[in-house]
Amino acid sequence: MKINITALDLVQMEQRKRANLINSVGGFKSVCLIGTTDGDGQSNLAIFNSIVHIGANPPLIGFIMRPDSVERHTLSNILATKSYTINHLNEAIYRQAHQTSAKYPKTVSEFDATGLHAEYKLNCPAPFVQESNVQLEVEFKQRIDLTINNTILIIGEIKQLFFPEHCWQADGFLDIEKAGTIACAGLDSYHVTQTLQRLAYAKP
Amino acid sequence: MKINITALDLVQMEQRKRANLINSVGGFKSVCLIGTTDGDGQSNLAIFNSIVHIGANPPLIGFIMRPDSVERHTLSNILATKSYTINHLNEAIYRQAHQTSAKYPKTVSEFDATGLHAEYKLNCPAPFVQESNVQLEVEFKQRIDLTINNTILIIGEIKQLFFPEHCWQADGFLDIEKAGTIACAGLDSYHVTQTLQRLAYAKP
Repeated sequence: MKINITALDLVQMEQRKRANLINSVGGFKSVCLIGTTDGDGQSNLAIFNSIVHIGANPPLIGFIMRPDSVERHTLSNILATKSYTINHLNEAIYRQAHQTSAKYPKTVSEFDATGLHAEYKLNCPAPFVQESNVQLEVEFKQRIDLTINNTILIIGEIKQLFFPEHCWQADGFLDIEKAGTIACAGLDSYHVTQTLQRLAYAKP
Repeated sequence: MKINITALDLVQMEQRKRANLINSVGGFKSVCLIGTTDGDGQSNLAIFNSIVHIGANPPLIGFIMRPDSVERHTLSNILATKSYTINHLNEAIYRQAHQTSAKYPKTVSEFDATGLHAEYKLNCPAPFVQESNVQLEVEFKQRIDLTINNTILIIGEIKQLFFPEHCWQADGFLDIEKAGTIACAGLDSYHVTQTLQRLAYAKP
């Protein structure tokens, strides 16, 4: 038996309760760590659960950023350096990854605060997360301000990928479950997965 | 040991292989059925894996739509009626849900083609999926054309929710795993989940 929550119920709902509910109803989400630098030696690491695929050719990936949150360091760093990394979470690091959402001052690197390790490689100015099995280097392409609620869509182009070779299938599919990647639900719930099935391209 | 895929590798990669890879690297994704009507008795149902949370107050949800795909019926219906539903997938219906991605002519309803049942309720013009445990009524708010690759971000406001009462926790969190909701990876891989943990709000 389903219950029915109306628009009026949502308006009258206590703010934190509504935030938990509305963040839950979109389904399972990608959860990743975004690594940046201010270009002056200060690194930043922040967790995001609003990654969205924009396109494969060119390889574009987006995420939604709140304007009024700790994630501002991520935004200012991306705008300053045009570079960031996206790093998948796994079971070994999700607690440390979640901890990056605490409001640290700009002078504190979340790498130091959480014990995750910054990994610099191949001329990418932004730090990768060493403990992450799937790592993307992304170049900032476009900022789109969503005037409807002052959030921001950041679009970037994937420049480089690092992942375990044994997870890559011949048709290009990367088995992120085999790579240990986890999913999240709501604002704070972390989940491992179990494959049901890959389905063939659908025809009428 | 990780392998390194460069920008040049991506450019030179066979198109379908690149599509599979780039669709995999964003992490696990929400996968939902979007139900619409043309306002003239013809219903449409299409699967999307690009749902993204935009905000909780007002309750806004977005998804990315390709301009050149079967999803055009969904777009024209949303623009015509301003109404759509978002319905979670579960283990019992994911094959039928996937089948909605086949290119049916506009005169064929994907409900009829796949055996899923349209459910009309409470003055919402768009059909819900009866077999779905978590159902959202959404009102179209904004279309944002992403000129970078001609995809479209559709933003809507959640007007009503239906879900199993026993999955709703006191703090507002909806346990979508308990509701049977599944996740997807890449273009065609479906996954059940297992909760690791809910974590507390992080403080420095």
